[in-house]
Amino acid sequence: MNKDQLKAFLQGVKDGEMSIDEGVDILKDFPFEDIEYAKIDNHRALRNGYPEVIYCEGKAKEHIRGIIKTMLKKDNNILATRADREVYESVKDLHDNIEYHEQARIIVIKKNEVKLTEGKVLVTTGGTSDIAVAEEAALTLEAFGNRVDRLYDVGVAGIHRLLSNRSKLDDCNVIIAVAGMEGALASVVGGLVDKPVIAVPTSIGYGANFGGLAALLAMLNSCASGIGVVNIDNGFGAGYLASTINRQIEMAGK
Amino acid sequence: MNKDQLKAFLQGVKDGEMSIDEGVDILKDFPFEDIEYAKIDNHRALRNGYPEVIYCEGKAKEHIRGIIKTMLKKDNNILATRADREVYESVKDLHDNIEYHEQARIIVIKKNEVKLTEGKVLVTTGGTSDIAVAEEAALTLEAFGNRVDRLYDVGVAGIHRLLSNRSKLDDCNVIIAVAGMEGALASVVGGLVDKPVIAVPTSIGYGANFGGLAALLAMLNSCASGIGVVNIDNGFGAGYLASTINRQIEMAGK
Amino acid sequence: MNKDQLKAFLQGVKDGEMSIDEGVDILKDFPFEDIEYAKIDNHRALRNGYPEVIYCEGKAKEHIRGIIKTMLKKDNNILATRADREVYESVKDLHDNIEYHEQARIIVIKKNEVKLTEGKVLVTTGGTSDIAVAEEAALTLEAFGNRVDRLYDVGVAGIHRLLSNRSKLDDCNVIIAVAGMEGALASVVGGLVDKPVIAVPTSIGYGANFGGLAALLAMLNSCASGIGVVNIDNGFGAGYLASTINRQIEMAGK
Amino acid sequence: MNKDQLKAFLQGVKDGEMSIDEGVDILKDFPFEDIEYAKIDNHRALRNGYPEVIYCEGKAKEHIRGIIKTMLKKDNNILATRADREVYESVKDLHDNIEYHEQARIIVIKKNEVKLTEGKVLVTTGGTSDIAVAEEAALTLEAFGNRVDRLYDVGVAGIHRLLSNRSKLDDCNVIIAVAGMEGALASVVGGLVDKPVIAVPTSIGYGANFGGLAALLAMLNSCASGIGVVNIDNGFGAGYLASTINRQIEMAGK
Amino acid sequence: MNKDQLKAFLQGVKDGEMSIDEGVDILKDFPFEDIEYAKIDNHRALRNGYPEVIYCEGKAKEHIRGIIKTMLKKDNNILATRADREVYESVKDLHDNIEYHEQARIIVIKKNEVKLTEGKVLVTTGGTSDIAVAEEAALTLEAFGNRVDRLYDVGVAGIHRLLSNRSKLDDCNVIIAVAGMEGALASVVGGLVDKPVIAVPTSIGYGANFGGLAALLAMLNSCASGIGVVNIDNGFGAGYLASTINRQIEMAGK
Amino acid sequence: MNKDQLKAFLQGVKDGEMSIDEGVDILKDFPFEDIEYAKIDNHRALRNGYPEVIYCEGKAKEHIRGIIKTMLKKDNNILATRADREVYESVKDLHDNIEYHEQARIIVIKKNEVKLTEGKVLVTTGGTSDIAVAEEAALTLEAFGNRVDRLYDVGVAGIHRLLSNRSKLDDCNVIIAVAGMEGALASVVGGLVDKPVIAVPTSIGYGANFGGLAALLAMLNSCASGIGVVNIDNGFGAGYLASTINRQIEMAGK
Amino acid sequence: MNKDQLKAFLQGVKDGEMSIDEGVDILKDFPFEDIEYAKIDNHRALRNGYPEVIYCEGKAKEHIRGIIKTMLKKDNNILATRADREVYESVKDLHDNIEYHEQARIIVIKKNEVKLTEGKVLVTTGGTSDIAVAEEAALTLEAFGNRVDRLYDVGVAGIHRLLSNRSKLDDCNVIIAVAGMEGALASVVGGLVDKPVIAVPTSIGYGANFGGLAALLAMLNSCASGIGVVNIDNGFGAGYLASTINRQIEMAGK
Amino acid sequence: MNKDQLKAFLQGVKDGEMSIDEGVDILKDFPFEDIEYAKIDNHRALRNGYPEVIYCEGKAKEHIRGIIKTMLKKDNNILATRADREVYESVKDLHDNIEYHEQARIIVIKKNEVKLTEGKVLVTTGGTSDIAVAEEAALTLEAFGNRVDRLYDVGVAGIHRLLSNRSKLDDCNVIIAVAGMEGALASVVGGLVDKPVIAVPTSIGYGANFGGLAALLAMLNSCASGIGVVNIDNGFGAGYLASTINRQIEMAGK
Repeated sequence: MNKDQLKAFLQGVKDGEMSIDEGVDILKDFPFEDIEYAKIDNHRALRNGYPEVIYCEGKAKEHIRGIIKTMLKKDNNILATRADREVYESVKDLHDNIEYHEQARIIVIKKNEVKLTEGKVLVTTGGTSDIAVAEEAALTLEAFGNRVDRLYDVGVAGIHRLLSNRSKLDDCNVIIAVAGMEGALASVVGGLVDKPVIAVPTSIGYGANFGGLAALLAMLNSCASGIGVVNIDNGFGAGYLASTINRQIEMAGK
Repeated sequence: MNKDQLKAFLQGVKDGEMSIDEGVDILKDFPFEDIEYAKIDNHRALRNGYPEVIYCEGKAKEHIRGIIKTMLKKDNNILATRADREVYESVKDLHDNIEYHEQARIIVIKKNEVKLTEGKVLVTTGGTSDIAVAEEAALTLEAFGNRVDRLYDVGVAGIHRLLSNRSKLDDCNVIIAVAGMEGALASVVGGLVDKPVIAVPTSIGYGANFGGLAALLAMLNSCASGIGVVNIDNGFGAGYLASTINRQIEMAGK
Repeated sequence: MNKDQLKAFLQGVKDGEMSIDEGVDILKDFPFEDIEYAKIDNHRALRNGYPEVIYCEGKAKEHIRGIIKTMLKKDNNILATRADREVYESVKDLHDNIEYHEQARIIVIKKNEVKLTEGKVLVTTGGTSDIAVAEEAALTLEAFGNRVDRLYDVGVAGIHRLLSNRSKLDDCNVIIAVAGMEGALASVVGGLVDKPVIAVPTSIGYGANFGGLAALLAMLNSCASGIGVVNIDNGFGAGYLASTINRQIEMAGK
Repeated sequence: MNKDQLKAFLQGVKDGEMSIDEGVDILKDFPFEDIEYAKIDNHRALRNGYPEVIYCEGKAKEHIRGIIKTMLKKDNNILATRADREVYESVKDLHDNIEYHEQARIIVIKKNEVKLTEGKVLVTTGGTSDIAVAEEAALTLEAFGNRVDRLYDVGVAGIHRLLSNRSKLDDCNVIIAVAGMEGALASVVGGLVDKPVIAVPTSIGYGANFGGLAALLAMLNSCASGIGVVNIDNGFGAGYLASTINRQIEMAGK
Repeated sequence: MNKDQLKAFLQGVKDGEMSIDEGVDILKDFPFEDIEYAKIDNHRALRNGYPEVIYCEGKAKEHIRGIIKTMLKKDNNILATRADREVYESVKDLHDNIEYHEQARIIVIKKNEVKLTEGKVLVTTGGTSDIAVAEEAALTLEAFGNRVDRLYDVGVAGIHRLLSNRSKLDDCNVIIAVAGMEGALASVVGGLVDKPVIAVPTSIGYGANFGGLAALLAMLNSCASGIGVVNIDNGFGAGYLASTINRQIEMAGK
Repeated sequence: MNKDQLKAFLQGVKDGEMSIDEGVDILKDFPFEDIEYAKIDNHRALRNGYPEVIYCEGKAKEHIRGIIKTMLKKDNNILATRADREVYESVKDLHDNIEYHEQARIIVIKKNEVKLTEGKVLVTTGGTSDIAVAEEAALTLEAFGNRVDRLYDVGVAGIHRLLSNRSKLDDCNVIIAVAGMEGALASVVGGLVDKPVIAVPTSIGYGANFGGLAALLAMLNSCASGIGVVNIDNGFGAGYLASTINRQIEMAGK
Repeated sequence: MNKDQLKAFLQGVKDGEMSIDEGVDILKDFPFEDIEYAKIDNHRALRNGYPEVIYCEGKAKEHIRGIIKTMLKKDNNILATRADREVYESVKDLHDNIEYHEQARIIVIKKNEVKLTEGKVLVTTGGTSDIAVAEEAALTLEAFGNRVDRLYDVGVAGIHRLLSNRSKLDDCNVIIAVAGMEGALASVVGGLVDKPVIAVPTSIGYGANFGGLAALLAMLNSCASGIGVVNIDNGFGAGYLASTINRQIEMAGK
Repeated sequence: MNKDQLKAFLQGVKDGEMSIDEGVDILKDFPFEDIEYAKIDNHRALRNGYPEVIYCEGKAKEHIRGIIKTMLKKDNNILATRADREVYESVKDLHDNIEYHEQARIIVIKKNEVKLTEGKVLVTTGGTSDIAVAEEAALTLEAFGNRVDRLYDVGVAGIHRLLSNRSKLDDCNVIIAVAGMEGALASVVGGLVDKPVIAVPTSIGYGANFGGLAALLAMLNSCASGIGVVNIDNGFGAGYLASTINRQIEMAGK
């Protein structure tokens, strides 16, 4: 219940339209509905045109189809992550404006055009193998209404490629650094800028990489300040976090 | 070299004040001085009144004293982290306006008053034992000019304490969640808000906690979106990252 | 041997029906048969109508079929866990009253109706992906004669879903909390109630989840008291443990 | 607010004793106070004569003294865990009826006599070095009003010591198995009984024990069913969990 | 070269049948041939009728066939371990007296009858799933000429099964304890006897078993003395080690 | 009860000296006393002149003194392991014939002379830093009546030192290989001989040694057959295991 | 820009062929192109006839084909690593002089003959299963113009095989030691020579090998000095590193 | 024995100066003395003026003094590593020309002047805290006769410091990169040069650094080629390895 609804409720009790026992019954379950409400309301305020999100990994194709069908009843755009081609094939008939990004394993259904922010989020990768995760982040950002700049394959084995793109580092609000192997990209980026850097370790590598652990530990131990780390291969999480930052900056500027 | 200096340099070559060979010699080492310059300049722009920072752990007392003395020659405030009392005692005579925060192990030397941001960063902890790390974050934030709100001991074992402070969660730009043991605070906070959450695992706990590993893994695996994780006990890093976010929002609003 | 058999044995020696040397031979192997007996007897007392259990993973189909055939000679119901569909297909002709629960990978053969307890065990999950493990627990509980209440997908990313079902938490004797990712559900539940909580980490997650290790460590390090943890994905173990608790409460109440 | 308070509140609104705006203000913060209330109330119902608990590790002596002083204003008994002798010395003047158990590092302040349950909890250990943790469990159980039976040093290296005490295993509601090294005690006990077993790995051992990890993993992987595991050295947690089980059985029997 | 060959060599030099330069050439490479020889000789003395061994995992079928063909030119029996059925099919035409043990993945080619020792090695397992590894050990032992006794499925979840076979434990020279899950069998066996126990952890289990790590750590940390541990699933290694012990005892007794 | 006692017991029942109910009472607790008896008896047979053993680490000085006093009432020798000098000082007045081996942290009290075996156990170390653990093994072996040969500091960094002592490798029944760092000694020894090798990883090393884990894993993964591994730094365990092997060989030879 | 280009540029400014503003624009992006240039130039000097390298794992077949096509436009040879047969089939039509090494998963395209060094790099393996990784190193070395000597299957289980090839150890500049299981080969080799040893742990093994971790830790903890370790299975890295050493020695000798 | 000695030996046998039995006795022990000799000889050739080395950690002061006294009887210089001040104080009277380097914990005793190589080894560090380990490497290098260049505190958080010292990177034969925290220095250096880089992870850091593990894994997983890694904090090992490379280059150049 929002404030007006609360008022109406109490007025109803006062006016005798609702008995006190009925009122007690309602109040017993009230708080959490209220939280839910608050949260949704808050979201609604923030999320004009924001997508509904569904994480597909580990879900059956028929369930995914069902969930998307339900989502389509509302007005929001839809973002389906970790969706392999088979999933896409099983839902592509549900809407005309459906796109599949195979490398990023993302499906986007656009019911409304999203107005992009002025400020940009820069998505960088250490190597070409990290691009799938980076695209998960970039497409998430775009679905949430952020302008995105991409700077791929600028890892520390050829540091000059990063340095010669200094202007891209300067011309954004947030930077996402996606890297596998030894994950040093995050530290180098963090050492060059004074803005939030979101580091995404990837599972790219072999041997003592241990599925991304090497990059994860490196990023957590970065000697550069101002770096927040998300889970291994979690492009969506990085994109979502960057969006919460970038959009606050955008809104403050209005 | 900035643009004007570049122009002057080329003009000098053009005018014959500098031979071409001398010019080549200068250009050979030019780029990195430029990077350094760019970085410093950039910093200067962003950091009016920002502190110089010194990380004390593992440094000899005489070295710390020397570094602080050098820093004091400039106009900036000074923030010394991981400084135990012994360190404080050995430097407290260096300036009149020196404060020691024992629990956070932080020394602050204020040469200038810092104007705080309007927007707030909320620092939360799961338990009372996490407060030392939280204070490292909070004092870092304040030294970098951020308004800070504290909400301590609101861990999931008593979830109502957190829920009944919902307004604090709503009334800030960034939230730092500091928690040891199972580190669930970050997830619960992340589930309640739509803004950046910076999670700091602490080494508080015992047994299969493995020095904070349990909380670290939990935070990286959070089912809530929008969470960036820093190293175990890294209050400074969390504060610094939150500051880069909060100050951008602040500046955008001006 | 039970007490009566012991008496008969000694009487036989006393009466000379058995020579002392024969008696010595019997006593030499006696104790462990006795333990076995005691245990079986004890079980018989406790387990009226209880199922025989077979763990199928890693066993050949023909062996499983053989074991179930032997079990069917007795009067007990049968519970086969970790049974994939192929296993089910290979045994479904063995009895008329055979059910297969695909998600939980459980086969139940009912020869007798089990009378359920009055008191309930509540099975909760953090997400929908944890339901397979939860159903393994729930179906185990039901096979062992416990009334079960289910409350699924109430993880901490949407804490209100759990809070708004507070009455379910209050209305049971034991709670099983099944959760993957950061496993925070167990802590939140443990913070809300004063009854035994059995935590089941699941291997749901990716990256630094390490096959359920993140949830496992989180649950072991819970800041809430009164939580016992079982192995990753061990729904059967949680159900069995909850049953030993719930049935003792039931029996005490009679 | 409980039901009666809710009624009174609505009646007050109805009767005009409280304006609708005042009512809205109260309702805004209402839910979580209610949760808190509910929890405390619930506790009060369950916990007649129950102790307040304070975990001392990592807390300053003066803070512990302060917290205990505050606790003493209420009528409850007090249990201070992980309290070394120095802590005890600093608080022993606060009450006449204060006991210190050095090995278990537990302080008990008794303001009321606790009536013990009829049913027993059996606390067992593998070796003599595990007794400190076992006593933490046992004293916690007694402080929470449970009758406790102790059976120490019955580890698998001398299995007959356990087997010859079979009657103790049979004559209790719950068993706590405390063991370091390879932690096999829990499996052997779990194989002998059909009741809840709470396993506590201890950090006793060396080399590839890794601070209790060996025992922890062994207990989680037990081939016996019905075992719930708590954190390494967590005697308090095991005692608390056993108490929630034992007291429910007790209450059901009344 | 053995002593006689050395003498002959020096005599040859002395007698001028071999020039000093030829002698130097021979001596340059001499030592290690000698080591090799010594080892082989030593082996020959010890190994009358012993098998040649080939470890098949990771080797190409054609290579295995080639190696076995070469081995067949000598008089020894042949033992091929980690051989799946496909390997067996590709070599089964090479000799008439070839046996395949599918569960143990072992091929035995018998060219000579092996006379078994009087003394026995007892091979025990915790569960039925450990039998494959146990059979690798048992068949290795038999191929090396040891009398083997088997005692399977006597794990600690039903300790009486082990205890009621005490005579088998007493009637052997060495015991091999094969167990997965928590690996407690080794400790219980080690606690009951005063003879060498060789513990083989198996990868049987799931969740926090980590591929046999739980059992491995438990066995290394056994509170019983006299236990030597081999690698996870290393049935061959355990059989080989037991054979070196058992055969020395046998030979000493002659 | 031994056979004669069993006969007497049954005769007593037969003769009416004991009522059948009394007989039942005795039989109820009988088996495990019998196990205990069997074990002790077995030990007595094997262990003429064997020492009682006490593990001192983690035990209070007064407890150790008490235990040794009790042990001294029997006729056996006494072996106290992991005893630092302080422990020794606190017990050295208890017997005239008491020796302290500081490096091995072992106390030996000799009440009887132990007759040594003919066959030898060879104790080898990789480096001089491993000698403390090796001496724990060697002194244990001697206390248990084994002839011991020592070959120290023959690690693989100078492989010729080992190779030039080949005769020592040949002239023993069992070899103990004690090594830290990369633990390669066990593999090299195992590759040179065809007899049981007991490998003891030590915690000697630093960095990625992880307290002996590197050596432990290396030894478990040895490419040489016939190696059994004990826990890190477990010299006593290796000595005890070697003794069970060596003494069986000795006894078989008589 | 190289020195001559720098001169020309400044001359152009001086002569007025380029305006100062144009010069500033060029200089703004200049440094990093310069770094790139420097690096390439440096490479060119060192790498006469050196191959371009492409790492194929994780890259799509069409991308690999594209990259190789581009590379073929230059004069260099091409080395494609981690290329399975399918990759080879998809590119084998691109050049006449293309070779595929299946075991090493390496494709070599030779456009120019490489002149080999005088000095040799010796590649050794512990077992036959390590040869695939060793061949990756050896073929890399040859592609980079190094003379290679191979010495395979000389692991510590049969140390004489290594020792009898001492002359090969002496007759080279660098040694690569490739070994799985316990990885002791590196230590033994390192103990025999006084030259750089590059250790490559392989993932060959099972059980507590943990995918090569055992060998990796052993090699890092080697008691022999002068050993540098590369990642598990990283034959290319070892070959590349050995080449940088061997070619410097070669060039110094000219 | 070298060739001439071998000839003399055989001549002696031929001439009857030595009996054949005496010859056999000598040959029995010959090979390994020969290995030892070969190794020492080899060393002598390579090591003119090289130091004897003693690793002090874990050795008793009196033993260290004894070893150094023995070493002093020969003509070589002496290098004592991991020597804390207390060790130095206990040996400083043994020679006039003794130096102590406290930070590096190294003692150098110079009996002869070492002629340094022309070619340099460059030792770099990420931060100032890594200097102790770097100095261990640098002083080792100097003791072994290498010219050393130092470049400290050039970590990736301020990448321009490294880039602006490019000439130092170019002007050496080998580079040692010493870094803690995320260890990215090795990758950045490896990406800038085409020469051997020896990476030394240090234990500098906290939290999820795990005693240097983060840096170690990062260095092993470097995306730059040509990097060999030594153990955590192993400055001596890195210096020794670099010396074997640098001196071969030096010698080749003569």
